[in-house]
Amino acid sequence: MPADIQPQLETFFAECRALVDHELDLLLPREDETPVTVHQAIRWSVFAGGKRFRPTLLLASGETFGARPSALLPAACALEMIHTYSLIHDDLPSMDDDDLRRGRPTCHIRFNEATAVLAGDALQTLAFKTIADQTQLPSDVRVHLISELATASGTPRGMVAGQAQDLEAESRQVTAEELERIHRLKTGALIGAAARCGAIIAGANGQELANITSYANRLGLLFQITDDLLDVTATAEAIGKTPGKDARSQKATYPGVYGIEAARKRALSVHDEACAALKEIGRSSDRLRAIADFILHRKM
Amino acid sequence: MPADIQPQLETFFAECRALVDHELDLLLPREDETPVTVHQAIRWSVFAGGKRFRPTLLLASGETFGARPSALLPAACALEMIHTYSLIHDDLPSMDDDDLRRGRPTCHIRFNEATAVLAGDALQTLAFKTIADQTQLPSDVRVHLISELATASGTPRGMVAGQAQDLEAESRQVTAEELERIHRLKTGALIGAAARCGAIIAGANGQELANITSYANRLGLLFQITDDLLDVTATAEAIGKTPGKDARSQKATYPGVYGIEAARKRALSVHDEACAALKEIGRSSDRLRAIADFILHRKM
Repeated sequence: MPADIQPQLETFFAECRALVDHELDLLLPREDETPVTVHQAIRWSVFAGGKRFRPTLLLASGETFGARPSALLPAACALEMIHTYSLIHDDLPSMDDDDLRRGRPTCHIRFNEATAVLAGDALQTLAFKTIADQTQLPSDVRVHLISELATASGTPRGMVAGQAQDLEAESRQVTAEELERIHRLKTGALIGAAARCGAIIAGANGQELANITSYANRLGLLFQITDDLLDVTATAEAIGKTPGKDARSQKATYPGVYGIEAARKRALSVHDEACAALKEIGRSSDRLRAIADFILHRKM
Repeated sequence: MPADIQPQLETFFAECRALVDHELDLLLPREDETPVTVHQAIRWSVFAGGKRFRPTLLLASGETFGARPSALLPAACALEMIHTYSLIHDDLPSMDDDDLRRGRPTCHIRFNEATAVLAGDALQTLAFKTIADQTQLPSDVRVHLISELATASGTPRGMVAGQAQDLEAESRQVTAEELERIHRLKTGALIGAAARCGAIIAGANGQELANITSYANRLGLLFQITDDLLDVTATAEAIGKTPGKDARSQKATYPGVYGIEAARKRALSVHDEACAALKEIGRSSDRLRAIADFILHRKM
């Protein structure tokens, strides 16, 4: 990425993160409110140093189509709640069995399994409530957002379907097609929802929604390829979890299926496809372009 | 309960159950759709012979205020999805650790823990999506329903908060006030939502909503007292789970706190309060009255 864009992009990400973190703090139950354990667990996992990539994408998409940040923030936070609930449940011993995330104990390690199950459940609930209660948006926009978010996070066309297929695929060889299908559901669907929800709040038309969806589909794929590459190549310190874990548990990964070099080339070409999709949007989309650059070059 | 009302009531419950089961079958992902395991698990738990008490209450409340069953059914099914998700997660080894429910293996026993976590997660998502997508209702009614359901099932004022407090209270003596607070959240909130959502769909006004809420609050308490009494007094065959389990795990129960005879008396007086609240509604509320009778005298 050109050296002059990097600082600008980091400023944008930092600004979005600050906005999102402030809004999340207002939306989540307080730690001193009964039942304290589950509220502590929720905040432990939500404020664990996440990049806020999905909310940032929602904000960038919404601003591209002309929405104000204040109209976008609650839905951006709802997305982060869904993402965090999925991380809490994915880390459980019966699922991926992870003790560390972003360099800190995972929710069920810091608290206990029952609390982690409930914290995830409650975060999902609060995500939908946050959108339903956003009275500054027309009701028909709110039900549209809720339907988008639910489709992208549930089954058969969303995140839970991807996680279920990923578990089913463990300990056996998957084809390249299966791998893309799994990741399109597991991470791509929610990334697509982030881009689409921003545009929906801004009142984008059908063609604009189709264009942003093309971009988001490539971005989601790029995100997963670089995520898999980081798992193979990065140090534990940089990614905050045990590297190489995917390979050891025989999870379906891009480097595993294609090899590291071919996976890197695939990342480059998917990045170019994402940028090409942006040209169709016909609006100033520097930030969306910058997000694609950022994902391509990310180190964490 | 008078002998002549019993058959009528059973017919009403059976009719509602048939309507709800048919609609659920249409709303849930098919078992042969990928990922099949999680869809099988969802249907295993949803079609496990439940009484459909909450959907029936929603239908009865909605019809009392003049709504047609077709307008009520999707929300009734959404409630049952939330209820079923909570049962699947409550049964997990890290929570109540139950192997049997309604005489059949629980979801994590029949499938596995990871699948049970995901099936519960997906059912919660589908509940909100079902309401969001119900285009026959105005958007502002849909967001109202979603907000009601989310408040009643989340934390700090809903089902998850109750479950968390129940777990925190295990292995220690709770006061009568704590016990009522736990159960008001754990079961009462969703029962209240059932009654309120029916009335909201029917377009009930604020006073009518307040009246149905008073009734539902007493009904929820009655439900929990009789549930606890059944756990002590019923046979395993009748209730389809291991009786006496609550006492062994030192869970907070009404017979445990008050004794069996006092708990029975309390059930009678709470039933009378529920029926008194119905008088305020000023509409023909035979079915709501019958539901209270049914709960008081239930054997399962």
